Amino acid sequence: MAELVVLYKTPKDAAAFDKHYAETHIPLAKKLPGLKKYAVSTGAVGSPAGPSGVHLVAILSFDSEAGKAAAGDVPKFASGGADLLIFDTKEV
Amino acid sequence: MAELVVLYKTPKDAAAFDKHYAETHIPLAKKLPGLKKYAVSTGAVGSPAGPSGVHLVAILSFDSEAGKAAAGDVPKFASGGADLLIFDTKEV
Repeated sequence: MAELVVLYKTPKDAAAFDKHYAETHIPLAKKLPGLKKYAVSTGAVGSPAGPSGVHLVAILSFDSEAGKAAAGDVPKFASGGADLLIFDTKEV
Repeated sequence: MAELVVLYKTPKDAAAFDKHYAETHIPLAKKLPGLKKYAVSTGAVGSPAGPSGVHLVAILSFDSEAGKAAAGDVPKFASGGADLLIFDTKEV
């Protein structure tokens, strides 16, 4: 499995971000070839020290070959203010 | 579902980190109550700009109530140089 984790920093206008993400971004991202699972955070993203500064986390799961293609496509849809990480995983 | 994402920055001694993580940390973390799934990155963690500076990503999945307890336990086992994020998720 290949995972794409996207960490969106807290935006200036959270309501506008949420609306755009739900109405525009999710439908686009769901078209990525080979997407097997797409989960997003609901509510606050916490960290041990308190607020994380992260507004939303998205975890997209692909079969590994499709993940490589999706990784290549990331620069086309990633907006500023997001960290993206792409990696293969194994269950332990 | 509650997710705990741990981002381990590249350590000075990657081989020592990997040995400790595999032999000591995974067995401990697998004892967390309510853990449903535990996946770790294999190989490089990439980002659109190139190397991510992240050596290892762990994604631990809990049912939501157990996730809250695990989040409270995180400070006990998190070493320096790791970012931890805790959040509930939904599939979209």
